[in-house]
Amino acid sequence: MNKPKIVERKAEAVKEASAVLYTATAAKKNALLRAIAGRLEKESTSILRQNEADLAAARAAGISAVLLDRLALNEKRISQMVAGVRDVISLPDPVGEVLDRQRRPNGLVIEKVRVPLGAVGIIYEARPNVTIDAAALCLKAGNAVLLKGGSEALKSNSALVAVVKRALRDVGLPAGCVEFIDTADRSAVAELIKLDKYIDIIIPRGSQTLIRFIQENSAVPVIAHGEGNCHVYVDGSANLRDAVEIVFNAKVQRPSVCNAAEKLLIDEKVAVRYLPRIAARLRKARVELRGDRKSRSIVADMLPATEEDWHKEYLDLVMAVKVVKGVDEAIAHINRYGSHHSDSIVTANKARGEKFLREVDSAAVYVNASTRFTDGFEFGLGAEIGISTQKLHARGPMGLAELTSTKFVVRGKGQVRK
Amino acid sequence: MNKPKIVERKAEAVKEASAVLYTATAAKKNALLRAIAGRLEKESTSILRQNEADLAAARAAGISAVLLDRLALNEKRISQMVAGVRDVISLPDPVGEVLDRQRRPNGLVIEKVRVPLGAVGIIYEARPNVTIDAAALCLKAGNAVLLKGGSEALKSNSALVAVVKRALRDVGLPAGCVEFIDTADRSAVAELIKLDKYIDIIIPRGSQTLIRFIQENSAVPVIAHGEGNCHVYVDGSANLRDAVEIVFNAKVQRPSVCNAAEKLLIDEKVAVRYLPRIAARLRKARVELRGDRKSRSIVADMLPATEEDWHKEYLDLVMAVKVVKGVDEAIAHINRYGSHHSDSIVTANKARGEKFLREVDSAAVYVNASTRFTDGFEFGLGAEIGISTQKLHARGPMGLAELTSTKFVVRGKGQVRK
Repeated sequence: MNKPKIVERKAEAVKEASAVLYTATAAKKNALLRAIAGRLEKESTSILRQNEADLAAARAAGISAVLLDRLALNEKRISQMVAGVRDVISLPDPVGEVLDRQRRPNGLVIEKVRVPLGAVGIIYEARPNVTIDAAALCLKAGNAVLLKGGSEALKSNSALVAVVKRALRDVGLPAGCVEFIDTADRSAVAELIKLDKYIDIIIPRGSQTLIRFIQENSAVPVIAHGEGNCHVYVDGSANLRDAVEIVFNAKVQRPSVCNAAEKLLIDEKVAVRYLPRIAARLRKARVELRGDRKSRSIVADMLPATEEDWHKEYLDLVMAVKVVKGVDEAIAHINRYGSHHSDSIVTANKARGEKFLREVDSAAVYVNASTRFTDGFEFGLGAEIGISTQKLHARGPMGLAELTSTKFVVRGKGQVRK
Repeated sequence: MNKPKIVERKAEAVKEASAVLYTATAAKKNALLRAIAGRLEKESTSILRQNEADLAAARAAGISAVLLDRLALNEKRISQMVAGVRDVISLPDPVGEVLDRQRRPNGLVIEKVRVPLGAVGIIYEARPNVTIDAAALCLKAGNAVLLKGGSEALKSNSALVAVVKRALRDVGLPAGCVEFIDTADRSAVAELIKLDKYIDIIIPRGSQTLIRFIQENSAVPVIAHGEGNCHVYVDGSANLRDAVEIVFNAKVQRPSVCNAAEKLLIDEKVAVRYLPRIAARLRKARVELRGDRKSRSIVADMLPATEEDWHKEYLDLVMAVKVVKGVDEAIAHINRYGSHHSDSIVTANKARGEKFLREVDSAAVYVNASTRFTDGFEFGLGAEIGISTQKLHARGPMGLAELTSTKFVVRGKGQVRK
């Protein structure tokens, strides 16, 4: 029963290695990423063999097809990991960027400079690709990383981390730059989130239950990736074609992700004309619609939406519909029931669009576009470690810059305070 | 025993009011601050009467002279509060500032815009002026605020919050913009830090024990103001006069604050020549020196420094001294034992200065200046809600900008994701 000791020892190793990465040059970090990409390609056979063992165990345990798909690696998925690492190489190093510079009246020159966060803990579930994606981003931002993946992917993740460790050795960086907690024991998570002595930040990815547990119990600061109960509001002035296309895209293009729309709000002024058209299009894609009383009086055969529906993230081909009195009711509904992720208004009225953008308190607010664009690549960050729904440190898609902190660098000539 | 209900009800009121402040104009917020300043001046007699009652109770309870001084208000201190509020009026409104703007290849225009954090909880101890200082900064940044002050200052704080509530009424803003937990019950803190349903961020100010309790138990994200175990390293190339003045200023000018230096590291190349001069100057100000073996062999009558000393924040006229082999040992010592607050090198060697600035991982790093400059006003932020020693969201002096979040504002023309 010395699991906790192992977790603590690895956290300590990560902390120590983070001091080396803290001052690593962009060239050094890119050399490491190139070594990782090269080794992933060369060593794919052994990685896939370990993944096959995980898959066999998962199948024997009767795990769902969805989970099996998340867990599965193949040559194509490894190529995608490699491409992802090479994308990160091509991104500029955020460390050292001077965000602000001023000369004070007393002659002090004060710069605010980006520095690595230090030691980052990533807690995630079944997908083994997170091991490489997250490690590459953390390393490029100068952070050492402690990984805790799902128990189903233990062998796959161990194989991937072994590849990274060999790449670290190739370029002469300490093995502690990337450590992996290779136990299925859930108490390792409870242990890890108390190690603020060694770990500077925890990024949990996974179920809301896991994230909630971590938020409530972590002594380490957490960046949470919450759920996406996203809305599209079709305003009375909306162009019908835009309304149909945006609602359809936001709901149907990839329903299992957090920036997919879950709710349709529609202005009573156009509900009778627009709702049947929108509903018909959604139903062609087999979307189940659940409506409030008014929308059910317009479109037949909708299930009734309950109070619970307004709060819910379906992550599926389900959409709840509500007829509202206009933009004010839409904004109030979104701020009350939404998850502050991504919300969009379809309107031809500029003032109402701007009002919506100003008053809806979400990580991303849109006028006349699909909520599906909330994404690090679509937002031009070049990469994404996740989408934060909290208000502290990072909100919305998180790229390399969000994996850094800052420090004030002050240059003087003997100044003392009066 | 319905204390928790009261805390929750107030948190809910703050959350509701935060929606109004979210879109309040700068003019409105400044009108509020003017009303607060005006009423503080007009109603000072009744505030001082309540403060006198707190002071009488504190004296009867045998509270220390230091604490009594923190608790005490007088006309001058009220004038300072008023001046502080007027300073905040003169600062630009951070809300609405566009931090980044890009047009994507698909025509989407994406802005990153500053928005209020929402509902801010401030937990503090004896000083009643924090009630006004913190409220003014939070309100200017568009946040509603829930205050929990020390039990010794209950009547003073209640009087100050009553003034703020009347000012809110004067300008037609909801009373819930500033709520105050008017109980001495410590369980109110435990209750408050679980209310992430209503409160977006907690800023604790006070003892390390209080802050640690909050960090370990809060479900609400915390911005911690940790201790300041600050160092001055006198390099072998340092100018003697600069070394003496900077060490003296950093230690003596105001020893009770977090940016005062607690440790002197000195290069062995100059220790024999410089240390007696520095020690003599410090001793004139009655600084107690505690030295490692080498420094005690140079300057007689130093107490021996223990391992504990290297970790300690004295907040007093005490300084521990260590002779080091050069800049590398100094950096390693600071990163190991320091609190990552403010650390300075005195050197005439540019390369060693830059190395220190790059490698020391603290909120503020200095070359040839006193650590005492780590302060929102000295850094040109115009105000300060505290000095963060954590790496997330805000590091170093926190001004108005650090009391905001951001959102992505996306303007489209019907774009959907392919």
